[in-house]
Amino acid sequence: MIDTIFKHRSVRKYKTDNIPAEILEKIVEAGSRASTTGNMQVYSIIISKEKEQKEKLWEAHFKQDMVKSAPVHLTFCADFNRFSEWCKQREAIPGYNNFLSFMTATIDAILASQNVVLEAEAHDLGACYLGTATYNADKIIDILQLPKLVVPVAAIVLGYPDEDPLLTDRLPMEAILHSERYKTFTSKRIDSIYKQREESEESQKLLEINSKKTLAQIFTDNRYKKEDNEFFSAKYLEVIRKQGFFMNE
Amino acid sequence: MIDTIFKHRSVRKYKTDNIPAEILEKIVEAGSRASTTGNMQVYSIIISKEKEQKEKLWEAHFKQDMVKSAPVHLTFCADFNRFSEWCKQREAIPGYNNFLSFMTATIDAILASQNVVLEAEAHDLGACYLGTATYNADKIIDILQLPKLVVPVAAIVLGYPDEDPLLTDRLPMEAILHSERYKTFTSKRIDSIYKQREESEESQKLLEINSKKTLAQIFTDNRYKKEDNEFFSAKYLEVIRKQGFFMNE
Repeated sequence: MIDTIFKHRSVRKYKTDNIPAEILEKIVEAGSRASTTGNMQVYSIIISKEKEQKEKLWEAHFKQDMVKSAPVHLTFCADFNRFSEWCKQREAIPGYNNFLSFMTATIDAILASQNVVLEAEAHDLGACYLGTATYNADKIIDILQLPKLVVPVAAIVLGYPDEDPLLTDRLPMEAILHSERYKTFTSKRIDSIYKQREESEESQKLLEINSKKTLAQIFTDNRYKKEDNEFFSAKYLEVIRKQGFFMNE
Repeated sequence: MIDTIFKHRSVRKYKTDNIPAEILEKIVEAGSRASTTGNMQVYSIIISKEKEQKEKLWEAHFKQDMVKSAPVHLTFCADFNRFSEWCKQREAIPGYNNFLSFMTATIDAILASQNVVLEAEAHDLGACYLGTATYNADKIIDILQLPKLVVPVAAIVLGYPDEDPLLTDRLPMEAILHSERYKTFTSKRIDSIYKQREESEESQKLLEINSKKTLAQIFTDNRYKKEDNEFFSAKYLEVIRKQGFFMNE
């Protein structure tokens, strides 16, 4: 059993201490050991430590404090640029300017990121994913000077924790697990799956603070709104297109 | 340091031994501990153990032997169905039938999958990703009876290894790591990054077997061909659309 996996929590407050170079090296090396399609390693990791770069990234990540306060920020990119350059210099014609290749590279990048997070935590570091990497990918591309066929898909901050958050609750396993075939979610199943979370003290507090009737409304009306999702969908599709992953357009 | 990460290799030959239920439970629970956007857990894992189901999946995965021989096959899906059902039953209007939500759910699913692989390996099991989950997602949707807003993004096989493969070589870290800004790949850098791999005995053998001049040509002409990538790109985009993640179409 890998203890680190079961102890994982996202850390959002960091000490100013830097991460020793040899530890950071080990952590990113852990990323490179993840599975990768055809051993092509079609991803890249951009390390940001400079104050100026982190300030720009902080803007792109909707000014989340931890981007500035954590000593290290890593951007994980789907990357078919290096592989295609290699092909071109070896009398081979690359055919990776398409959506399937974008997905292949995305999966490579995300697998590497999870190894990085776990290895970091095994060195007593804290980490937190920034979902905003896909929201403002256009800005991140400018800041990190990403060429064609390179698209940010995830970002994390890393550093020594200055908080000790509790383990986050998870839904019962039957919420995510299906045996042989997908099992429809009847209203009875939904009730049973969400019961504990909905009845928790934390949820009751959230309803009061947000003046909402149900916990789900906090997600649909405040946290992950339809209009925002649609706005950032169009923006991200445009980024993928601009970076060259839709060959026919 | 997490040993399991640095010892990872893909296993393609399996013993017939079943995986004890309590170990399988622990492994999938490890998946549920991965980071997830807003703690929404917008993914699902479908376990296939039945002979008949595995045979159908074997077809969908281009008849790769290990799909039939490994005792367990897991399909990881981007899943906004359960979450949206919850919203609907809680007087909340879900707005997740869009591409950004598909990406969010994909990332959730892939993070969970990597925890599952590592936890499995820590229990002396072997695992292998099947890249073909995105290629024939339409067939997998039929086999597993996946509803709208559920799309397969990755699949793995799990079982006790019947082979002990060597650690796969990886490119030097400078191939994937960039400091502060993306560093362009000049032909000199490409030469240096790929030198060791290209000069290896294994590569020399591959060139001979495939009658190719460069290793890159084996990728572009045999393994990951432009026409296949384009064919499966169109197919996967159609699947995403059919499953309801492009609201405007």
